[in-house]
Parts: sequence; structure tokens; C-alpha cells
Amino acid sequence: MSEILRVAVIGAGRMGADHIKRLNTRIHGAEVAAVVDVDLERAQSAVTGIPGAVALSNAREALDNGDVNSVLIATPGFLHEEILLESLARDIPILCEKPLTPDAGSAWRIVQAEVDLGRKRVQVGFMRRFDADYAALGKIIREGGLGEMLMLHCAHRNPDTPPGFTNEMLINDSVVHEFDVIRYLAGEEITSVQVRLGKPTKNAPAGQHDPQHVLIETESGILADVEIYVNAQFGYQVATQAVFEQGVVNIGGDSGPYLRTAGRWGGSITPGFEERFGAAYDVEVQAWVDAARHGEIGGPSGWDGYATAACCEAGVEAQKNGDKVAVALNPRPALYS
Amino acid sequence: MSEILRVAVIGAGRMGADHIKRLNTRIHGAEVAAVVDVDLERAQSAVTGIPGAVALSNAREALDNGDVNSVLIATPGFLHEEILLESLARDIPILCEKPLTPDAGSAWRIVQAEVDLGRKRVQVGFMRRFDADYAALGKIIREGGLGEMLMLHCAHRNPDTPPGFTNEMLINDSVVHEFDVIRYLAGEEITSVQVRLGKPTKNAPAGQHDPQHVLIETESGILADVEIYVNAQFGYQVATQAVFEQGVVNIGGDSGPYLRTAGRWGGSITPGFEERFGAAYDVEVQAWVDAARHGEIGGPSGWDGYATAACCEAGVEAQKNGDKVAVALNPRPALYS
Amino acid sequence: MSEILRVAVIGAGRMGADHIKRLNTRIHGAEVAAVVDVDLERAQSAVTGIPGAVALSNAREALDNGDVNSVLIATPGFLHEEILLESLARDIPILCEKPLTPDAGSAWRIVQAEVDLGRKRVQVGFMRRFDADYAALGKIIREGGLGEMLMLHCAHRNPDTPPGFTNEMLINDSVVHEFDVIRYLAGEEITSVQVRLGKPTKNAPAGQHDPQHVLIETESGILADVEIYVNAQFGYQVATQAVFEQGVVNIGGDSGPYLRTAGRWGGSITPGFEERFGAAYDVEVQAWVDAARHGEIGGPSGWDGYATAACCEAGVEAQKNGDKVAVALNPRPALYS
Amino acid sequence: MSEILRVAVIGAGRMGADHIKRLNTRIHGAEVAAVVDVDLERAQSAVTGIPGAVALSNAREALDNGDVNSVLIATPGFLHEEILLESLARDIPILCEKPLTPDAGSAWRIVQAEVDLGRKRVQVGFMRRFDADYAALGKIIREGGLGEMLMLHCAHRNPDTPPGFTNEMLINDSVVHEFDVIRYLAGEEITSVQVRLGKPTKNAPAGQHDPQHVLIETESGILADVEIYVNAQFGYQVATQAVFEQGVVNIGGDSGPYLRTAGRWGGSITPGFEERFGAAYDVEVQAWVDAARHGEIGGPSGWDGYATAACCEAGVEAQKNGDKVAVALNPRPALYS
Repeated sequence: MSEILRVAVIGAGRMGADHIKRLNTRIHGAEVAAVVDVDLERAQSAVTGIPGAVALSNAREALDNGDVNSVLIATPGFLHEEILLESLARDIPILCEKPLTPDAGSAWRIVQAEVDLGRKRVQVGFMRRFDADYAALGKIIREGGLGEMLMLHCAHRNPDTPPGFTNEMLINDSVVHEFDVIRYLAGEEITSVQVRLGKPTKNAPAGQHDPQHVLIETESGILADVEIYVNAQFGYQVATQAVFEQGVVNIGGDSGPYLRTAGRWGGSITPGFEERFGAAYDVEVQAWVDAARHGEIGGPSGWDGYATAACCEAGVEAQKNGDKVAVALNPRPALYS
Repeated sequence: MSEILRVAVIGAGRMGADHIKRLNTRIHGAEVAAVVDVDLERAQSAVTGIPGAVALSNAREALDNGDVNSVLIATPGFLHEEILLESLARDIPILCEKPLTPDAGSAWRIVQAEVDLGRKRVQVGFMRRFDADYAALGKIIREGGLGEMLMLHCAHRNPDTPPGFTNEMLINDSVVHEFDVIRYLAGEEITSVQVRLGKPTKNAPAGQHDPQHVLIETESGILADVEIYVNAQFGYQVATQAVFEQGVVNIGGDSGPYLRTAGRWGGSITPGFEERFGAAYDVEVQAWVDAARHGEIGGPSGWDGYATAACCEAGVEAQKNGDKVAVALNPRPALYS
Repeated sequence: MSEILRVAVIGAGRMGADHIKRLNTRIHGAEVAAVVDVDLERAQSAVTGIPGAVALSNAREALDNGDVNSVLIATPGFLHEEILLESLARDIPILCEKPLTPDAGSAWRIVQAEVDLGRKRVQVGFMRRFDADYAALGKIIREGGLGEMLMLHCAHRNPDTPPGFTNEMLINDSVVHEFDVIRYLAGEEITSVQVRLGKPTKNAPAGQHDPQHVLIETESGILADVEIYVNAQFGYQVATQAVFEQGVVNIGGDSGPYLRTAGRWGGSITPGFEERFGAAYDVEVQAWVDAARHGEIGGPSGWDGYATAACCEAGVEAQKNGDKVAVALNPRPALYS
Repeated sequence: MSEILRVAVIGAGRMGADHIKRLNTRIHGAEVAAVVDVDLERAQSAVTGIPGAVALSNAREALDNGDVNSVLIATPGFLHEEILLESLARDIPILCEKPLTPDAGSAWRIVQAEVDLGRKRVQVGFMRRFDADYAALGKIIREGGLGEMLMLHCAHRNPDTPPGFTNEMLINDSVVHEFDVIRYLAGEEITSVQVRLGKPTKNAPAGQHDPQHVLIETESGILADVEIYVNAQFGYQVATQAVFEQGVVNIGGDSGPYLRTAGRWGGSITPGFEERFGAAYDVEVQAWVDAARHGEIGGPSGWDGYATAACCEAGVEAQKNGDKVAVALNPRPALYS
């Protein structure tokens, strides 16, 4: 095992703050060395109480800081490309929150830079692969006891959306997670996307057609469908049902204490993704730290970031024209085979 | 198959009215011929719209009515003995709501009258034996795939109690059902009863110590325990967990539509015993009708009524002294072997 | 209440035999008067032990039998039209197993004959409407507490298929039930059907593409989807998830005893539709009998039979061309408004 | 935040090895500095790959090692007293696996040594308090929305027992956990213990009477009962049902992927306590590390260790005589108020 990771966290917003707390209180083998935010006060507030951590307003400055040997990128997606390229230029371990970049073209540039570097340095923050339920489903698929997987029925429901959450963001910010896990579970690429728009909820803001029904096919013909519903009111839920030749598996069921009171049985629904996937984020970051200390990555690669970006582009087009849209992918570089 | 049952229903209160509706709309092979109630208006109201049914205020008059060939007793328990003896004297099929009679002494007199008659004519209304879940548990026990049954954990919860529901009635009206099903599931008699009184709910009326924890042993040493809780507020629930050498079985779980709304997952709890056991009552009465048309009984016998009465006597004594009280039973007559 | 129904059951196969047993042992107010089967021995076997019931090989003979005042049609669908028209000509209550007839054209002739008669005499055997779970979901929809219904996710899984079960029968025999309940739950007509064919199970017989994913839209834009999977091996399951503006409701969940044994928790899956919908059939037939004794119908009408036939025609076409196919319906006659 | 904990782990058996792995891969702010085992080879094997950690065969030597500033005791209970006293003499943070010591007398000596020291240094390894479900139940109790807690029904089931697991160990090793959580949940002391021995499983080794039913009362009259069943075959399960004035709460339900296959619905049962409580151990140790770095404890205290030891003594006596045995406790020192 090599030296402790001294991490520069870029972005001190909701996700960045969450990762700073995680690195500083629950992760073994890593420490927060620097926090970067254009809002320097926010960065300063984030490092309070963390011995040896500095607050900066410029990512490059952080990467050049001799005390920093790795980077966790948690800025908005449109800012990722530059920081990724700078970090790759320095050949340091990178954990990049999803999306890798906002479009397939820029994602492909990251892939190329990494291929030029000759080693995988970028891990993309698709945390669901580290969720215990998804991991268990992946194990069932690989072990093959239920035969071939034939269909996947997915639901992704948020209680509501932050201001400015556009129709395209239903695909780019939300369904992107399903694109990744469908690829991960199927073990192959997505070939087409179709989107059905039906009766909308009155609880969606203007400009959002919510919910939507996304139809996905993979290389071997697995049919997946995703209900994306981001103003579902009742709570946060991510659930998947996988249909096999010899059975059906559901993950993402409700859990926790079971109450009987006031004429109702049941329990509480997780209010948001932090509660639902908090443990998965811990496992993800620990896996990254453990792998990075050995010069490796411990999760989804730059290729995964690129391929999901291509799915998102197809999804947004399908959202607009109602047709089945093919997903176009460049050949997979040998680095990711 | 013999003639249609022409039933005299004795008692037109809550249970009687329920049975009248059942016989008149859902049961095959039986009709309501007479309804008896000391409140003649209530009896008259109950027969409205039932062609050929008469309203009477006197049970004997009903039993003497040439159009009546069977009887369903749904009066309060303290009135059962006389009607049972009159009915046995006429050698007609009898379905008697529980309890058979309020105490072991009078129940034994019914047993003796039936033994003298030489054939089983009395079926006692322990409807739980006809509940699909209890029936399934009984099947698991008899098939033996899980090995010997070792323990039974039972809960019997009512939302509240009617006025005048005394401490003794927790045993005589509520736990009596558990006495019967424990005997039924164990396939043997109960040998002792102990009652623990702990912290009471503030929702119980004066004079009631609620909840109580009843400890029961059977001939082979099966340890059962019953939480009886009759002011549980949240709804109605009867649940049993059976512990075996190779596994554990729960019955009485919540079911019905599963909702996610307003931060909660789950569904509705049955508000009372009619909703929980309505189907069991239908099966019970149909089983009685089918058997009675062949001169037999199709459920718990007079002996079961007597044995549970003896358990209740022990239970009420145990409630008072806190000790383990033995259940005293006369030898079982050959008629019930 | 009028006279007892004296029912001629046409067809003594699996469904017919089931209905004969039901009428003869569990239904109030009806009796089996005649059983008709081209295989006279099968008819004779079916009436054994039923006092007053005759066995015949010809439906017209049964309808002309003075002891018969109603008819339950349980023959294969292609034989329904003639018996329906003969029965309507006699103006007697009819319970017709689904499908009403095998195609929209013939179904429309039944509708017209009934319109000419001027009163609803035909009830179609879509038993799901009488299932407690579907009824509860219908109640939630009508009460409106969860807002508008937006989507329906349906799964219909059989363990395997009988010999000769064709690709078209996935639509005509299986999805037909979903067409009916989607119309029933949505309270409006289906406007289009699309079918996705993906990776098939190796357990399907030659000529069947199984599973299939059927996409349905209703007049107001509700998006329904149906996984039809008839060689699912694991057991029988019909489950529906309804998505509302303020919540999500699941019906068709597994129930029954909950076991823990040999490293597994859970219970048994119903092996077939009789176990899953047995109680619904009882409620359906009792509702028909009760209504028929008052000269009415107590469930889905001839119009429902016609409209689902039109959906099936669209579905079979969609299965072949992969496109979204519109459902064409004649105007609804006033009789069914 | 003070310096990193440099932990001496005493005992490299099953629990010790588990804690070494935890400290070395998942806990933030602590490192393994030394591993002590009488079997020096086992200690050496345990430190392999841990930079800076030494293997020793003598606990005192480890405590005297200048690189060690804290201790985690994971030896058999009968060895705890000496190490605890040595560690308290050095005034360092101590996490001691349960039991604190094997009997109330020795546990009281630990309490007295800590009182003499004048600060709480000992945290006892009752990990259930750190389980998410128990924590959620504790929150429900404290918030009071369901009114007073009245009863607790507990089940503690192991698939089987290691060689040499005696009848007393059912109380001292297994029910001890329930003693602690009942005290924790009730927020008060246990006053009496009774044990019922009934029909035993044939799967228990000679000398063990299994299962047993343990009846517990607390100061305010809460009635708890524990089914302890250590040869339950089916898997590992710890479940609690709490009964309140306005409702009932269950924790410890089964979770994970939900399968339908081969006629069965359900999922996998955790095979042992590591799988069931692995996350709780992580939270427990992290809480200890976080508190210890501030000179505090972050969980159950020496008093909790003493009080549960007293409950165990009463339990073992009750196991032998069948009577209700009072729990005798010395007055609680002010240090623990």
C-alpha cells in the first residue's frame, strides 16, 4: 500500500461538501488536502476544522500544490473537461462526479487523453454500482443460476426538482444513472433509446414533461424501460426489476422499521439520494482510494463516462422526436477492453 | 346430498346479522328460515327481503317451526346452554358461535348431552381454523417438512373495546380464540396458563389491565405466548409465528395494495375482525352447511368448546394470581376421539 | 329477488368444470340445470352428483330445456358467437367467458343483437374486476386522493403454456385481460398499441416470441406497459403498478405464510390463475347471479367485450409490424353509456 | 481533533481479525499499531501487510509500546479484567468486546477502577446500539409519537453453535445482547428475569436446552420476552417488536434482493452476525475512534457492562430454577449518571 491520498476536492457545493465530510470522517487512507470553489468563502467554510487542508478558488493552483496527490471533481458537469485534462496531464488519480462531461464529443476527448497517457486514471462517480442491492443483482446475473436476463424494468423517482431543472436534465442528470447501470448489469452497450411522453403531472414546473417512459435496447436484445418521474412528491425511489429465463429479481425495495399505527402498516421512504445511496458513496470512494493508492481505478472508467454521454445524446434526441434513436459509439480503445 | 338447510338464526345482533346476510347471499345449500331475537323488531328487520323467513322472539318457537331443520346460535354466550340442549333434543345440526358456553361446567353438560345423543351435532364457531393462513400453517405442521413445532408467538390486537368489556373478557372473549388455535395447531391439549401484567396503556378503560402477556404450555411442551392487547388503537391484527426445528413461519401478515405516498410506504390495516376474518366465516359456514346436509359436523366440536372453556377458567385464575395454573380436563369421551 | 337461476353451462373443459363446481358448491341463488359438451361423456361426468342436472351434447337443446333460465358459456372463443346469439334470442341472462368472440367484427354483431334486444343480457368473464386488489386500486383511483393516474406498469406471467399456444394468443388470451383492466382502471378507451420484441427465453416453444413488451396509450394519455411472459417458469403472477401525481400503488404482491428456512425467507407463489383468481371468480359469478335474478348484469358488458376485441386486433398487428397501431372503435351505442 | 489512534488489538481470533481488517481498511482516524495473541504466529499473520504494526504475544508489552495510544480488547471474556485494569492504569481509550467481564463481581471492579480514575475510558462492544434499525427504534421511542412503550418481543436465532457452547452461554453470550438493548431501548434497568424451558430441538448438542423463552421486566414494568434459539438451522436472525400505546414497530426484518424463482418468492437470510451487523460494527468502531480522539467514549459504558453482567447472573440462575429472579445492582456511580 502506498502513501495516503491527499485529495483536492474541486467544488464545495452539495456533492462536494458531502464528499469532504466523507473523506474527513469515514474513509480510510485519504485526507482532504485542498478544497477549491469559485466562492472562496464556501471553500474556507468547508475546510474549517480539517487540519492541513487549504481553501482555494482556482483548481489549477490546487493541482500544483505539492501536498495534493489526487483529485475529486464535484463541480457542475460543464466545468469537468478542463479539470480532467489538467489532472490527466499531472498523471494523478481522479474521481470525477457524473457526468464525465456533458456531451459525447468532450467525453471522447477525455478518453483520448487517457489513452494517450496509457493508463486508466479516471474513475467516474456512478455510485449505484457500489450499492449493495445492485451489487447483489450483478452477482445473480454473473452466476447465471436464473438463466439469461431478458428485460429490465426501472423506476427513478424524485420528490421534486431544483429550480432550473430542464426537460433535457431528466435524461442527462437522472436517466444517465440508468444508462450506466443497464450497461453494467447487461455487460454490454446500449444500442437505441426511445421516449414516450404521456399524461403529465400538474406538479412539474413549466417546460418539464414529467413523467416520461424511456425504452432502451442493448446489443443482445435486452429490453429495458425506465420510468423517470422527477416530481413524484412521495419521496425518492430507485427500483429495478430484472426478468430472467428462470425468475424475476427486484431490488430497491423499501426497508427500515415496519410500523403499524393509525390504520396503516409500513415505514418511511428515503427522502433523497443521500439517504438512499449514502452507503454506496462511502463504498465508492473507499474503493477509489484503495485502488488509487495502487495506481489503479476501482470503478466505472472514462469509457463508461463516454458511452453514457452518447446514450444521453440519443435520449435527448428521442425525447424530441418520439422515435427510436440509435446510440452511436466510437470503437472501444484497447485500454478499456 | 340431502335437502337444503332451513336455518333458524338465534340472535340478530352484530354476529347474527352478519350470518343472516351470509346465509342469504353467499352460502350454497342453506336459507334463512327464521330469525329469533328478544327484540322482535330487530328480528323483523333482519328478515326483511328474505322470502319465506319468519321473525320470532322465542327460540323454542323457532325450533318447533316445521320449516326449520337446523340452527345457528349467535346470542350472548350465557344464553347458549338452553338453546343448545333444546336443539340437541331435536337432533338437528347446530352451528354455535363461540364460546360454546361461558364456563367449563356448563360446556361439559353440552358434551354429555351430545354423548348421550350418540352423534356429533354441535359445531363451534372458532372461525380461525377456516382462515387461509391458519389452514396453510396447519398443513405445514402436519406435513412435517420443518420438523417439530417448538414455540408459538401470538399477538391478538383490537383497536378498542366495547363498553363493559371486562378484564376477564380479555381471556374469555379474545384469548379464547388463541386457546382454540393453539390446540388445533399443536394437535394436543393445553396443560397450563400463566399471565403477566406489566405496564398498561393509558387508553384502557377503568378495570381493564391492557395489554397482558399470556404464557401457555401444551402436553408435549410446546411453549406458546400470547400478547392480548385490546386497546391497541392502530387497527385489528391477529398474527402468529410458529418456530420449528428447521425454520420459522409467520402468518397474519399485512396485505392488500402497497402504497407509496407522502413519505410513507405500506398499506391499510384491517379495522376489525369482520374485515380480517370475513372470508373465514364464509368458509366456516359453508363447511358447516355441507357437512350438516350429510348429518355431520365440519369444524370444531363440542369437545373443543369444552376444552377451551377449561383453558379460559385457568386463564382468568392466572390473571388474578400471577401463577402458572394447570388446566383441568375431564377424560375425552370416545365420541370425540 | 326473483327465482333461482337454473344455469346451462356450455362447455365442460377446465373453465367449465371449474364453474360447475362453483355453482354447485359455493354460489347462492343458482344451480346447475344442464351441462353441454360435444364430448357427451365429459358432460355426463360433470353432472354426476348434481340433483336435477342433465347432460347434453347440443347447446340449443339446453337452451330449449324448460328447466333452464340462464346460460354460462365456457367453450373455446370461436364457438361463442352462435351460442350468444341463440341465448340473446331467448332473452336470458348470459355469463360468457372471455373473449366475447375472437374478433372485433363478430363481437360487434353481438353488441348489435343486444342493442336490438334493448337490454343488457351479456356479462363478459373478465374476472379481474372482481379481484380484491384490483377493486381496491379502482377505489383509490375514483376517490382521487393521489391525484390523476399517469402510468400503469403491468406484468402478466405464466409458468408455461399449453400445447398449441401461438404468438397471437399472447395477445388474444393473455394481454386481453390487461386491455380490459387498463380500460376499467383508466375509465376510458385504449387508443393505440405497440409491441417490442427483444431477447427471447429459450423456454418458449417454436413460433412463440416470449416475453414481449406491450405499450399502450389511453384517450387521456395514460401510458401503460405490459410485460407478457408466458413461459416464466417460476409460477403465475399478475401484478400492476399505478403511478399517480401524489404516489404509487402496487397490487398483485405475493402473500400467504412467510417462511424462514434453509437460508431463505419468503413464501410460495401461486402456481396458476385458479389459485390467484379463484376468489375473484366466485365474486364474479355471485355478482352475475345476483344481478341476473333482477334482470341486470353485474359486470363487464358486451361493449367491454367488443372494445377489448378491437384492442387485440391492434395488438396482433403491432406484434407483426413493430409500429404503434391505432385502435379503431365504432361509436358506443347508448345502451352502454 | 487530536492525533490518530494507534490501536493495540488484543486477540487475533474471529472478532479480533475482523476488527483489525476494519481498522486497517474502513475506519478513519485510526491505525493498527500492534496485534497481540498468545499464538504469536496468528498475531504475525494478522499484521502482515499493515505498515508499522507489530505482532506481540503479551498484552502488557503492547500497552507499554510507545507507538500505542489505545486498545481494542477482543480476547475471550475471562481474560478481559486484567487487560482492562492495565489499560485503565495507563489512562488510554479502550474498546472492549462484550462481555465487559464474565460476572458482575469482576465487572464492578472495572467500574470502581474507572470511577477512581475519574473519567470514562471504557466503551463496551454492544454493537447493536449502532445498527440502523435499533437506532431508528430508539429514535421512535424518544420522540414519543407512539406513546409509551409497553412490551418488547425479541428473537435471537443462530443457525448453530460452535463446539463447547454451553447452556449458560445461551444467556451469557447471546441473551446478553438483548439485556443491553432492552436496557438501552427502555432507558432503564432490568429488574427480573425468568426462563421457560419447553420442547427442545433435536438439533441441539447434549447439555444444551434449546430454544428457551426468557421473560424480562424493567423498572417501569415493560414486559420483554426473548426467544433464544441457537440451533435454528435456517440462518441468523435478530428481530425485535416493540409495542406502544399507539402502535407497533418491528425491526430486524429481512431485506435484500427479492426473488421469484422455482415457485418461491423471497430472498436470502444473513448466515451470521457478521453479515447482519457488519455495518453496525463499522459505525461502532468509528464512533469509538471519533470520541476517543477527544478523550471521550462514544457508546455503552463500563456501567452498561456491569449491569448486563448482573442480568446474566440472574438469567443463569433463572434458567436453573424456573423462577422469576430479581436482578441485584449496586447504586450507579455519579460518573455514569
